[in-house]
Amino acid sequence: MAGVLLPSWRAGTTRSQIIDFFDRVDTIPVDERVAVFDNDGTLWCEKPNYVQAEFLMSELRRAVADDPTVGDRAEYRALLDGDFAALAEIGFPRAALALVELHNGLTPEEYTHRAAAFVAEFRHSERGVPMRQLRYQPMLELIRELRARQFDVFLVSAGGADFVRSISSDFYGVKPEGVVGSEIGYELARRDGAAHLVRASDPADVSANEGADKPSNIQRALGRRPCVAVGNSPGDADMLRYAAGHRGPSLALLVNHDDAAREYAYASVAGTFDADESILDTAAEAGWVVVSMRDDWEIVFADR
Amino acid sequence: MAGVLLPSWRAGTTRSQIIDFFDRVDTIPVDERVAVFDNDGTLWCEKPNYVQAEFLMSELRRAVADDPTVGDRAEYRALLDGDFAALAEIGFPRAALALVELHNGLTPEEYTHRAAAFVAEFRHSERGVPMRQLRYQPMLELIRELRARQFDVFLVSAGGADFVRSISSDFYGVKPEGVVGSEIGYELARRDGAAHLVRASDPADVSANEGADKPSNIQRALGRRPCVAVGNSPGDADMLRYAAGHRGPSLALLVNHDDAAREYAYASVAGTFDADESILDTAAEAGWVVVSMRDDWEIVFADR
Repeated sequence: MAGVLLPSWRAGTTRSQIIDFFDRVDTIPVDERVAVFDNDGTLWCEKPNYVQAEFLMSELRRAVADDPTVGDRAEYRALLDGDFAALAEIGFPRAALALVELHNGLTPEEYTHRAAAFVAEFRHSERGVPMRQLRYQPMLELIRELRARQFDVFLVSAGGADFVRSISSDFYGVKPEGVVGSEIGYELARRDGAAHLVRASDPADVSANEGADKPSNIQRALGRRPCVAVGNSPGDADMLRYAAGHRGPSLALLVNHDDAAREYAYASVAGTFDADESILDTAAEAGWVVVSMRDDWEIVFADR
Repeated sequence: MAGVLLPSWRAGTTRSQIIDFFDRVDTIPVDERVAVFDNDGTLWCEKPNYVQAEFLMSELRRAVADDPTVGDRAEYRALLDGDFAALAEIGFPRAALALVELHNGLTPEEYTHRAAAFVAEFRHSERGVPMRQLRYQPMLELIRELRARQFDVFLVSAGGADFVRSISSDFYGVKPEGVVGSEIGYELARRDGAAHLVRASDPADVSANEGADKPSNIQRALGRRPCVAVGNSPGDADMLRYAAGHRGPSLALLVNHDDAAREYAYASVAGTFDADESILDTAAEAGWVVVSMRDDWEIVFADR
């Protein structure tokens, strides 16, 4: 039905709070209509594994198939064996950084092509469907309604910027420059007589886009303060606080994964944050709008 | 006259090379139509001083008027006195970083407001006109024609990102997220019970957007490789090389300031580059299109 606002959202307090915000949008100057969305667990399913982690593990297996000695590196061995004791000792950040090094020497274009091809082929391990169908339909509707109200919509993810960009236009209509993510290093290299960038990451070049770095990186990369922020984990809390502090009307929205039947039920924790911090307590204290996936969404997943 | 292409560009080789490029644009996929422009000396006049330097000196004089002890700092003293011997000893980068610190504690919004107000009031020291009228009319026409061909147009400046953003929408139709510039540090601070970012730069946070950092920062911030790059100094050379290495048609355009009568005649050198490197030699060797301001432009400045 044309004209029904947010059709996949059930009537109730949450939907009403969003529509109340829409009713106040006219008072926000157009150039301040900036909305930022986290990606994993906010716009698409992040369980049982982040898609980027699935991609990197697939790349690792491919690298080892090409050259078995690659698997001799301690970080890779522990990851391939699922050896959690070894991983605990190595530390998650070091293991993750080792995976990022797999793509050193690729141009950004080569990397993007490979990442996009992976996501297109990938089927969710438990649901058997492509990731397009694990985008949250209510969020796609929210993005559409924000754009209809002249909002610029950006993605602010702890995922790798180039990884998220490989799907951002197709999945969310967000151009590459609208993606803020974790960053790596590049080098200018000469190939066949022409200048190219290649990925050349060492751990010092990697900056994770989480927590207080999200607001800072929003300013660095986008240059405007959002008045709408949507997230799901403690790593999004500072971004939500920042949007909620906007001088005019604002909307800070937190997705609560409480739907074991249709998606997953879990307390969102971010890799670098204390699992004891309950993001729901933070949300209640701050007065953010909490979305119960179970109660507030009539439909969870986009069907195409 | 509607329909005249690039009316401020004189007939000749340079204009023909640009139009030849336009004739080949159809072979470039739309999502690869990315154009990057340097700002100082490329889109507006940078002589006798960068506008940002004028702004910072004005801010320094204001700070000293409010509190004379501010002027006791060696870097500020040397700048205020125009003491070139002292400045040479201090070093240009250290003096510039000291000026950046003047705005520590301001929110990005407060800074932008102050910068935009300065540029609006500022009159060029030799011409007496506002900076709007020192934008290069032929470049505004080039930007318009690129957009008419579905290019996304970005600014990639060694100027401070937030400084350039304060005028980018108004002067060039480039939104804040389309500006890549030198970066500073921010901190999340609590004021009146709300979360705000404040400028909190120490020298380690400042990254200058020049030379090989321009291509890397284009990828970090914009995520796409340009096929059009326009610049005027050795600090733009790597950006032009990078665009020229695009797999399809490309346009690498270098402005030569050879018009003492209407603008200035000078060899462009960038702060961090060896003045012995002639960017014109580099351009000739690389086959870039060199714009003679004197010969190729019928009109230099925008008249409003």
